[in-house]
Amino acid sequence: MQVVSVKKALDGSVAPDTKVEVRGWVRTRRDSKAGISFVNVSDGSTFDPIQVVAPNSLSNYEADVLRLTAGCSVVCRGTLVKSQGKGQSFEVQADEVRVLGFVDDPDTYPIQPKQHSLEFLREVAHLRPRTNTFGAITRVRHTAAQAIHRFFHEEGFFWVNTPIITASDAEGAGQMFRVSTLDAVNPPRTDTGKIDWSKDFFGKEAYLTVSGQLNVEAYCLALSKVYTFGPTFRAENSNTTRHLAEFWMIEPEIAFADLNDDANLAERFLKYVFQAVLTECAPDMKFFEERQQKGVTERLEKFIQSSFERIDYTDAIEILKKAKKKFEYAPEWGNDLQTEHERYLAEEHVGRPVVVMNYPEQIKAFYMRMNDDGKTVAAMDVLAPGIGEIIGGSQREERLDRLDERMKKFGLHPEGYQWFRDLRRYGSVPHAGFGLGFERLIVYMCGLQNIRDAIPYPRVPGWAQF
Amino acid sequence: MQVVSVKKALDGSVAPDTKVEVRGWVRTRRDSKAGISFVNVSDGSTFDPIQVVAPNSLSNYEADVLRLTAGCSVVCRGTLVKSQGKGQSFEVQADEVRVLGFVDDPDTYPIQPKQHSLEFLREVAHLRPRTNTFGAITRVRHTAAQAIHRFFHEEGFFWVNTPIITASDAEGAGQMFRVSTLDAVNPPRTDTGKIDWSKDFFGKEAYLTVSGQLNVEAYCLALSKVYTFGPTFRAENSNTTRHLAEFWMIEPEIAFADLNDDANLAERFLKYVFQAVLTECAPDMKFFEERQQKGVTERLEKFIQSSFERIDYTDAIEILKKAKKKFEYAPEWGNDLQTEHERYLAEEHVGRPVVVMNYPEQIKAFYMRMNDDGKTVAAMDVLAPGIGEIIGGSQREERLDRLDERMKKFGLHPEGYQWFRDLRRYGSVPHAGFGLGFERLIVYMCGLQNIRDAIPYPRVPGWAQF
Repeated sequence: MQVVSVKKALDGSVAPDTKVEVRGWVRTRRDSKAGISFVNVSDGSTFDPIQVVAPNSLSNYEADVLRLTAGCSVVCRGTLVKSQGKGQSFEVQADEVRVLGFVDDPDTYPIQPKQHSLEFLREVAHLRPRTNTFGAITRVRHTAAQAIHRFFHEEGFFWVNTPIITASDAEGAGQMFRVSTLDAVNPPRTDTGKIDWSKDFFGKEAYLTVSGQLNVEAYCLALSKVYTFGPTFRAENSNTTRHLAEFWMIEPEIAFADLNDDANLAERFLKYVFQAVLTECAPDMKFFEERQQKGVTERLEKFIQSSFERIDYTDAIEILKKAKKKFEYAPEWGNDLQTEHERYLAEEHVGRPVVVMNYPEQIKAFYMRMNDDGKTVAAMDVLAPGIGEIIGGSQREERLDRLDERMKKFGLHPEGYQWFRDLRRYGSVPHAGFGLGFERLIVYMCGLQNIRDAIPYPRVPGWAQF
Repeated sequence: MQVVSVKKALDGSVAPDTKVEVRGWVRTRRDSKAGISFVNVSDGSTFDPIQVVAPNSLSNYEADVLRLTAGCSVVCRGTLVKSQGKGQSFEVQADEVRVLGFVDDPDTYPIQPKQHSLEFLREVAHLRPRTNTFGAITRVRHTAAQAIHRFFHEEGFFWVNTPIITASDAEGAGQMFRVSTLDAVNPPRTDTGKIDWSKDFFGKEAYLTVSGQLNVEAYCLALSKVYTFGPTFRAENSNTTRHLAEFWMIEPEIAFADLNDDANLAERFLKYVFQAVLTECAPDMKFFEERQQKGVTERLEKFIQSSFERIDYTDAIEILKKAKKKFEYAPEWGNDLQTEHERYLAEEHVGRPVVVMNYPEQIKAFYMRMNDDGKTVAAMDVLAPGIGEIIGGSQREERLDRLDERMKKFGLHPEGYQWFRDLRRYGSVPHAGFGLGFERLIVYMCGLQNIRDAIPYPRVPGWAQF
């Protein structure tokens, strides 16, 4: 007896009329007057369930099969045959349907065979993976993550996991979470009443990282092409639909590279990941297209076919000023672009992805490379139709004297960055990189409205663990 | 002009006599009396540097080439030719050697072309990736991580990232780090002087996760085969050579599976990863063999060729009691196995990997499945020659009444685990999984003595960020 996943059973890779065993959870059951039950069984391996045809000649037909409800777990053995029914390729003519687990009190089981609101599902986070929506999101997340690792591997990058607990604030950007093992009620104190952090686990104040970029630069200046893919944390904006306190970030860093190389890498990267999801998650994408956001598939297809436009920030401001569109925030040189500006540029001005380059130095981080104009730095944002900024990156300041100048402007103390300055003292090279939030990518690909639906466990009051 | 990595230049995939550009950092320079300098250049893409042959006819020969020291960054253009020298396949006959960055004060540059102690290198964590040892470790880490994702993908698993910040202690195992944004000096307090955690970022006390296993079970009971690969944290034992406060863990979880399926998965998994590293990191493994631990390669080869032995814990205790070896800790039924016991079983008793199964219930976690004997649970440890335990796993208790009994024994309150109990109330199925530390795997594969050398950034006092 061949145990097969529902995916394999449906995709034609198992010869018809083979005896198979499929295992999974019941989605629906329908009984015909002729004494046959049609049980749809899902195992999560693919979007569609498989139909198991259970005749009343089964010895446990009345005792078990007729009691099956959504969520029950079954092991079904029978013959895999081409299906006569519409919309399905194969079905199983069952010789045996064994129930492993019924559902306690089916009437109160939260995942009924109907559409639930995403708000409701956030409160049953442990059961929502059993729904069409979260099964599909999980498969897209997986496929995208695999594609990300594969893309970098094929391009000769090495994955580096930078520290999660850190003593430094990567870029002065973002509120941080403190990590401590001190007794919160009665912490050890110094003579002046301050907390004595030397008594803490690491002997100093420690935080959760907001970015692995600075740390990964040291690996870049030794191994040439590296990337991080790991969790990062921001203790802010936790109640919007666009921000998460905990999210996964992807941060490639390339040596012997300038801002153009960086933009080229970003373009290849996004297209590769989108293509993988379109190819490998076709049934899931079809579902998002139909039920989540019309046009989401076409948006990705067009994205892949387009070459990215590149616009200087200064030109972008001019374009926005001349636009007939009325913006909530007036575009002004020296201010960061708002989402409305970004979307106008990508959607209306050029109608495809745009890389905006060379931003005013005062609105960008200290480590970005000063341009010859003395006013802008070699920063870039990749703007995607339908969402706005999806990637932010820059060429890094590789000249020690310029870096010191910028650190001074930002009020940073060079002593705390001695190791980072060392990278400019010892065999410095032009290098560049970018960062993007993994969940934002999922939101974009699946057409979601709330970023909490892009992570396996949302943090909501109703959920036991958050 | 074709820009090629050192790896590509050396591996024969570029035709001889092609004009190429290679970029990297100088390892060594040797000048011949005939007025030719031999500059070894590494870009991290592979273990070996490439030899760049720079004649004194280069216009900047005296000004630049003769000033090159270890760590300088260069861009070299020239002809790729078959090397006459021993131990190298190809070299570059340079037409141009451009220096991008010299080394400030070469005499004090920490990474000299000689062997440094690993202790010293931990204190220059930002520069140690430029050494042979840490270049090789980084490539092995990358290759192993890629192989892990690829293995699970090919087997039909989905990657799930479970929460890093959590309100619950996964298994009552391990001291946890608290995560907070409250003012540590003057935290908000309740009337009774306790900390008012409701005012904290998440509205309750929060910690860093010690394991994603419980969370991933919910995805397993919907998608059948899932795994985590992410950071976990333990606030203990930070000063040993075997433990890390922050480490990456791999935790697969399979539905419709028992302990035997779990052991089979562990066997396929380890062999797959070891094979990938042996095949893809051959030059790095050769280095570890020669400089780190003699026999480390052969150990992995033998591992791959062996079938795993399986021994019941109860039998293992008998074997240990009968052993002629004198143990520091006497083996006794009811106690956990010590590393000396584990290594004896794997190395001396059977001479290959061993899975010890069915441990006394009192020494194993609450969620492990009670065996019919009423004394043992369906737990397993995979013991590897040369290190002892490398994987720990179990079949999970899928029967609600038995789970409740065990939770009671462990003093756990069912109310806090309602969601976990739900998984047993709604379509419960036999399921199993295991966990292993990624860094421990690296230690084993590279023959390292200190687990701090298996992570990109060690936490040592000399290092600015830890």
